[in-house]
This record gives sequence, C-alpha cells and structure tokens, in this order.
Amino acid sequence: MEKEHDFIPERTKWKRSVYQVIFKSDTKNGKAFDLILLFLILLSTFIVMMESVSNFDAKLHSLFVILEIIITVIFTVEYALRIITLRNKKAYIFSFFGIIDFLAILPFYLSLFFPITKYFLILRMLRMLRVFRIFNLLDFMNDGKFIVTALKNSSRKIYIFLMFLIIFSVIVGSLMFMVEGHREGFESIPQSIYWAVVTVTTVGYGDVSPGTPLGKFLSVLLMLAGYSIIAVPTGIVTAEMRNKRQELEKACPRCGNDDIDDDARFCKICGEKVV
Amino acid sequence: MEKEHDFIPERTKWKRSVYQVIFKSDTKNGKAFDLILLFLILLSTFIVMMESVSNFDAKLHSLFVILEIIITVIFTVEYALRIITLRNKKAYIFSFFGIIDFLAILPFYLSLFFPITKYFLILRMLRMLRVFRIFNLLDFMNDGKFIVTALKNSSRKIYIFLMFLIIFSVIVGSLMFMVEGHREGFESIPQSIYWAVVTVTTVGYGDVSPGTPLGKFLSVLLMLAGYSIIAVPTGIVTAEMRNKRQELEKACPRCGNDDIDDDARFCKICGEKVV
Amino acid sequence: MEKEHDFIPERTKWKRSVYQVIFKSDTKNGKAFDLILLFLILLSTFIVMMESVSNFDAKLHSLFVILEIIITVIFTVEYALRIITLRNKKAYIFSFFGIIDFLAILPFYLSLFFPITKYFLILRMLRMLRVFRIFNLLDFMNDGKFIVTALKNSSRKIYIFLMFLIIFSVIVGSLMFMVEGHREGFESIPQSIYWAVVTVTTVGYGDVSPGTPLGKFLSVLLMLAGYSIIAVPTGIVTAEMRNKRQELEKACPRCGNDDIDDDARFCKICGEKVV
Amino acid sequence: MEKEHDFIPERTKWKRSVYQVIFKSDTKNGKAFDLILLFLILLSTFIVMMESVSNFDAKLHSLFVILEIIITVIFTVEYALRIITLRNKKAYIFSFFGIIDFLAILPFYLSLFFPITKYFLILRMLRMLRVFRIFNLLDFMNDGKFIVTALKNSSRKIYIFLMFLIIFSVIVGSLMFMVEGHREGFESIPQSIYWAVVTVTTVGYGDVSPGTPLGKFLSVLLMLAGYSIIAVPTGIVTAEMRNKRQELEKACPRCGNDDIDDDARFCKICGEKVV
Repeated sequence: MEKEHDFIPERTKWKRSVYQVIFKSDTKNGKAFDLILLFLILLSTFIVMMESVSNFDAKLHSLFVILEIIITVIFTVEYALRIITLRNKKAYIFSFFGIIDFLAILPFYLSLFFPITKYFLILRMLRMLRVFRIFNLLDFMNDGKFIVTALKNSSRKIYIFLMFLIIFSVIVGSLMFMVEGHREGFESIPQSIYWAVVTVTTVGYGDVSPGTPLGKFLSVLLMLAGYSIIAVPTGIVTAEMRNKRQELEKACPRCGNDDIDDDARFCKICGEKVV
Repeated sequence: MEKEHDFIPERTKWKRSVYQVIFKSDTKNGKAFDLILLFLILLSTFIVMMESVSNFDAKLHSLFVILEIIITVIFTVEYALRIITLRNKKAYIFSFFGIIDFLAILPFYLSLFFPITKYFLILRMLRMLRVFRIFNLLDFMNDGKFIVTALKNSSRKIYIFLMFLIIFSVIVGSLMFMVEGHREGFESIPQSIYWAVVTVTTVGYGDVSPGTPLGKFLSVLLMLAGYSIIAVPTGIVTAEMRNKRQELEKACPRCGNDDIDDDARFCKICGEKVV
Repeated sequence: MEKEHDFIPERTKWKRSVYQVIFKSDTKNGKAFDLILLFLILLSTFIVMMESVSNFDAKLHSLFVILEIIITVIFTVEYALRIITLRNKKAYIFSFFGIIDFLAILPFYLSLFFPITKYFLILRMLRMLRVFRIFNLLDFMNDGKFIVTALKNSSRKIYIFLMFLIIFSVIVGSLMFMVEGHREGFESIPQSIYWAVVTVTTVGYGDVSPGTPLGKFLSVLLMLAGYSIIAVPTGIVTAEMRNKRQELEKACPRCGNDDIDDDARFCKICGEKVV
Repeated sequence: MEKEHDFIPERTKWKRSVYQVIFKSDTKNGKAFDLILLFLILLSTFIVMMESVSNFDAKLHSLFVILEIIITVIFTVEYALRIITLRNKKAYIFSFFGIIDFLAILPFYLSLFFPITKYFLILRMLRMLRVFRIFNLLDFMNDGKFIVTALKNSSRKIYIFLMFLIIFSVIVGSLMFMVEGHREGFESIPQSIYWAVVTVTTVGYGDVSPGTPLGKFLSVLLMLAGYSIIAVPTGIVTAEMRNKRQELEKACPRCGNDDIDDDARFCKICGEKVV
C-alpha cells in the first residue's frame, strides 16, 4: 500500500484545505468525504451487479445509466482535485491507487467512443479496490496490514508449496487420464488436471468424478493427501503470525511473559522492571 | 453473556428459595430444575422439527399442538417466576436471555390471535438459544468462554479477512461472468459471485461449474487461492488461542515452564518457588 | 488404551512362553505372531469387503466362506489362549481389547444358529480395531498416543464448539426452510439442517442447493462462516499439541531452549547444566 | 534431494567447464543453461498435455512429434554430458535425479520399437520432476527444504492419523452400506468407503449422497467429525514448523527473544550479549 505522506500538498491555501479533506480523514469534513466516497463506490458496484441481471436491466436501464453518469462525474472531479492539490502529481498518478482511480473512470469515457461491451464491466468492478484506500485512511488497516505482512512474509514458502501442489496435480491428473480417459470429464490431460485440483483442494464440484474402481481408489488417495497437506499453508502462516505477534508485543526481559499492559511498569509475573 | 450476579433477588423468603432454584444450579433442586428445563427445550425444538415434516405432522398434529401448549405454559410460568423473584426486573427483561425467554413464549400467544404461518417457526426455534443459559449455570461454559473470547479478540482481523475475501470473490465473479456468461449459472454477476464464494470456500456444490477451458483455468486458480488462504483465519485464531492459553496458565517466573500444577509450590523444571 | 502390564501371566512355564508370544512383541516369535495376526486381520477385513461386492461374491462365495472359517478358528484359538495364559482373566475379558477380541469371533458363531444378515458384517468389520492392539505392541503408538492425548485434552472445547455449530446449523436450517421450503431438498426442517451442515462443513455435495436469490445469499453467508470458523477446532488442537510437545521435551531451565539432545549434558544455547 | 557436491567432476579441462555449466548455476552460462532447461521441460510437459487434447492433436500432430524429437535429442545429449563429465558416474546414474533424467528420455526410444500407447504419457510427464533439480540449483529450495523437513518430521504422526482416518472411514462406510445398501452408490462396502472418504475429507463430490433419514443423520455426524479432525494434521505440522523455525533462528540465551538480527551483538530486549 502507498504511504500517504509521500504526497506533498501544494502551498496555495484552498489547495491545502482540499488536500486535507480528500487525503486525510482526521477532520470532520475529511471523515464525511470518506464516508460519501465509500457509499458511492459501493453504490456504483451495486449498479454494475444489477445491470448484469437481465430482469433488472430491462426495467431500470435508464436509471442505471443516469446514476452511472452522475457517479462517474463525481469520481472524475475527485480525480482532478487529487491531481491539482498535489505538488508531486506524477508520484500519485503512477501510484497503485492513482492507477485504480484512473481505471475507475476510464470505462465511462471509453464507452462514449466505443460500443459498450461486457469487458467494460470488469474495469468498472475494479472500482471496488478503492474501498481499500478509504479503510487505509480510516485507520482500519492495522489489522489488515498484520494479515498482509504475514502473507507477504510467508509468500515464498506458499509459492513453493503451490508449485509442489501443481506438479503433484499434473502428475495425478495424467495418471487419471490413463485410468479413466474413456470417461466424460477425463478426455484430456488438462481436463484431468482440472479434476485433480478440484479434488486435492477438497472443493469437489462433482461435475467430474471417477467411475472405475481403480479411479476411485486413486481419488481416495488424492483426497487423503489434500486433506493432510492443507496443514502446510496453515502451518506456514500460523508460525509467521505467531512470530509477528511476538514482535509487536512487549515482553518481559526476565521471564518472557508477553502479556504486559501498556501502562505497566513492572512485569506482573516476575516483578522485573519493564520500560 | 450476562453475569448472573447482576440480578439481585427479592428479600421475601419464598422468592429467595425460588430464585435459588431458577437462577442457581449448585443445589440439588437447582440442578434438577436445569435438567428439566434442558429436556423441555430440546423436546420443544424436536417438536418444531417434526411438525415441519409433513408425514409426521399429518399423523401427530394434535399431539404436537398439545405438547406445545404444555411446554409454553411451563415456560410462561418460569418466565413469570423469573420476573417476580428478581428485584431488578428491568435489567433481566432487557438482558440477552430475558429477551430470548420472552421470544420463546411469544409465538404461541401471537398464534392465538393471528393465523399461524411458518414464520413463527423460526421464533420457536430461537428457544434453542436458551440452552446456553443452562450450560452457563452448569459451569460448562469456561471452555465456551475461552472459544468466544478468542473469536472476539480476533474478530477485527477476521472481519477484514472476510472483506478481502468478499472483494476478491466479487472481482473473480465478475471476471467469470465475462468468461462464462453464456452458460447456465453465470447469467449475471451476482450469480457468478455466488459461484466464486462456493468455490473459494471449497464448498463446491457443483450446481454451477465452469464449462470453457478458460473458465476451468480461472477456477483452478481460485481453488488454489481458497485452499491456501484458509490458512489466514486459522493462523489468526490459533495465535490468539495460544496467547489466551498462556495468560490463563501460571508460568514459572524463572524458566517459563507453563505446566505447573495447581498445588505446586516449586517449579518442577528449575526448582524456582512458584506462589 | 489398556496397559499390557495390568495382565499378570500364569506361572506355569508353557503358559508363560505363550504369554510372551501373544502379549509381547520384543522376542522374535512375538514379533512374527504379531505380523501374522496383522495379516489375518487385514485379510479378514478384505474378505468382508469383497463379499459385499455382488460380482465377486457370486464367483468366489465358497472361497470366502472357507477363509472366513479358517480365520475365525485361528482367532478363537488365540482368544482362548489369551484367557488361559492370564491369571487375571476377568480384567482381560472386560477390557477394551478383550471385548473387541470377543466381538471379532462372535458373528461367525451366531451365524451358525441364525440366518446371516448384513448386520453381521459390521460386527466382522470391527475386527479392524484389533489392528490398534498390534500397533500398540509394536511400539508404533507413541505418536498415536500424542494425537489421542491432544484430542482428549481438547475434547471438552471441541464438544462445545460442535454444540455451537449444531445449534447454529439448526437455526440457519430453519431459516432456509422458511426461505426455500417450496424447493426440493428443503421440504422440512431436518432436511434443511442436513443442507446447513453439508454447507457449513464445506462438504457441499450439491444434492441440495439453494435456488432463490435470498437462499443463495444466506448460503454465501453460511459458507463464509464455515470457512472462517474451521479455525476454531484447528486453533484448539494446535495450541494443545504445541503445549503437549513442550511438556514432552526436555527444556533448559535457564533459557527455555527446548532443543536438547538426549545425550546433552549442557544446554547448547546458554551452557547451563541440564540433567 | 541429492547433494550436488557428491559428484566429483572429471579433471580434463573441457569436462570441468561443461560440468560448471550443467551442474552449477553461479556462472552466467550456468544460469542460462538452467533457464533453457527449465523452458524445455515446461514446453515438453505442455506438448504432452496438448497431445492429449484430441482437437489439437488432430491439427498439430506432426508439429508435436517434431518438437518431441528435438527436445528428446537435447535431453539425451544433456544426459550423456552429465555422465561423461562426472568421475563418479555410478553415483549419478542411480541417484534420484539420475533415474528421472533417464526416464525422461526413455519413452521416446521405447516408442521407436514398440507401438505408442498412452502409458508412455505418464513417463513423459515425469519429466516435470526435473524442475526440482533446477530450483535446487537456483537456490530456490531453502524454503522448499523447510516444508519438506517439517513434513518429514511429522510424517510418522500423519501416517498414524491417516491410519485412524482410514479405519474410521472403513467402519463408517460399512455402517452406511448396511443403512443405504439398496441405493445407488452404496452397493458394496468399497463403494461406501469411497463415499465415506469423499465425505470425511469434506470433498463432497455429490456423485454419491445419502437418501434415507438415518443415512443423512450418519452423514451429518461424519461431516462434523471430518470438519473437526482436520485440526489434527494441521496441529501436527504447525507445531513442527513452529519448532523448526525456532531452531533456525538465533535466540537470546537470557530472555528467549528470537527476533535477533544477523548483525546484532546484544539482545535488543534485555541487553544480553549474543554471539
């Protein structure tokens, strides 16, 4: 996530106050702005969803279009203000949220020149990511950062685990292609790999399932494997989180007790002075 | 959960003894009362279930109605006694269990005046929650409290995780709508989001499943994601529980050994005196 | 699990040596006896399985019957020898494995007097439990005991968690009965509870799945709940195992380092003497 | 995994430099060689997959055959060079990767003499395992080794857990055979065991699902069991990883703080000197 203080505001007075409202959330106006923005983002996402339901779209198409125009105009003004009030415009424009902010308004303007296709929808859905910016401001993200950091620190191990898993699925899938190749759903190796992943992750749609005794036996082995090795990512992340937690917490230097209140001056277990 | 000692009993002697029986479970009568209540609650829930099975209801409808009347009368008497024996009546009436106790008898009296609809059923099922009151009394709830506390302490992190997961599912669902929109089950974005949640949580009903190669490929990615990130809530709760456990346990101030029996005077590992 | 040394062998010499072979596995004969027994148990289980497959049973019925007779005779002799060689016969007969040993031969003798029904099958399958006795002897069970102890220690918490989960499923099931009651698979509350458990445990057969938008929305909530709260039993058992592990391991009294080799005389981290 | 330094290179100069390129990845040529090899392995796997899709194979069969010939020739040359440049040829040939390298080229030469069957496919897919050799060289495998070690250390416990689980599934499967034996999918004990494993591992294809009320009740118990005991392998591996982690990390001898930077000379928590 970007660090907000990387962006230096312009010196003009009105720009500074707009900057306060848009980029900060510690003032009353700033908070109100964030909440309105949050509402607009959720509304906008909701409209896209409803548009995709043919029933609703048939009845309310023009309402959806009008709302979409209004929201896009507001987002455009906001985007412009963000650029104007910052001195380091480039840093913002090419930052993660800068790009998201741009993509959030792009589809509308594209649709003025090009025929609307459903591929615009996914761009409009990306607006949802803007939600994170607001949570970021609302100081909701300490816990989010905890999760993200733990995942980031264990990502190498998890990638390797996934690689193992994929290679395992590819080999098991090929095996099943040999065993059940004549049955529907196992007609090719990629199809069989799809089945293997569905099985090893314990999703188990059942759109493809083994028919021969040998195929069922292999499936049973694969399920037991999937059921056991889910322990691996869990173990990795748990160990990481436990560690992270300990780093964050003060601990008594003498007995290692990590349950020390913020105002404590002595460890409640062993009486050692804690700073 | 309410704290029972918040409720001060009336001073009259019979009220005090009724209070003992109803609100406490350390006397013989109190325990018997709790067990009878537990039986009635389970019986009542069982009757509601059986009523919903048309076969049974056809044959035993009148029996069900009679039993329901008897149980409701008993519950009503009990509810009245609870109010009468307490001095702080208001605190009880508006406490969590006070409301549940009221809702448990309400549907019956409503059904005297209004036609019975199946929406009464869910109110009657809420009686089940009264089970917790009894477990509370029977001192069964230390472990329950452990679980609830651990969940409560990690709830913020879990909410944020769920938010990540929902936004992720919304985006993946929209993507799948674009890819598989022509197939049954992916006709709209909300439908596709339903599929995405079914997949990422590894439930995998199979009522909706991808048909195109690209759709299957995206599904495989989604399944692997779901299979890996289940580690996150698990890690959060495990770290919390481990911590909670350590707080609850006495630990040796010198070596940190946390396996100290209640009657121990010296740490069995290092011989340090433990109070 | 029973403790083998609770059984005192008879004093006669041949009884003592038979006792050695049957109850111990540290001699060559004892080990051979265990392996033969293991083979017979697995063979016997395999035969029961194959008997249930109508194809195989049609062709090989008489072979199955003959093998079954031979195995039962051997098990009967073994059971008799166990009783004869022990002085404390009663303790054995009513011990866990004593009962299993008896049940393992009972169906055969019953079938001499009563017509064979498939209900005998499950009794014959219980023979599988005898496998644990052998693993017990083969000193395979230290790790098994670790698992069993961890589960036993966390069983109270897990029961309470399951109770929460069941009450939750009952309430959600009733709700779904109201919402989707007209659809197949939700005709009664018990049916809907079945669906709720299938969903919350992330099994997701798909034999029953929601059809209305509201039903799908509730399902999504239930899935997310199930996906998150699987963290609870995992957290409970992990915390327990971690603890158990620490108890089992020697730890340095000074620095708490728990990686101490069996032959170590000094802690490799801080140099403290460890006994 | 093999240790590369077990293989001593020949003394001739050109052999030494070829050895550097093939077996090491710290030179520029060595790295380039690894990347080319990685590409060829993935390409080769991709071709096998595409060959199995009848559409693609119909159109591109000759391209696939040509590519397969080229890749096999390269792999053969590489295999020959590996043998030539090593002095301890035998150690390589019978090492894990030596056998994989041989199996990777075998199917092609077999297919010159024998008719091609789809059983060759699985041998060709085994080439994928060669990926691990490259990751090994690219120093990607520290984290992989962490996972493998943790799994290896907990393997005994996990085997025993799986044994419990299998015996449990066999008994539950037999029970279901008795209850639902007349329904499709439960015709024999092995079929019912297949269902039991599908259920207890929470895969839940839905190709077989219970039909009778009693069967559904048993299923619910089985699902709840499966949902709870997944905690066991998770707990085992997590405890193991946590331990492994601690061993790998330096820890302060006085306070046990395990967050010590590599260049730290004093513990940042208690000030104790750390070497």
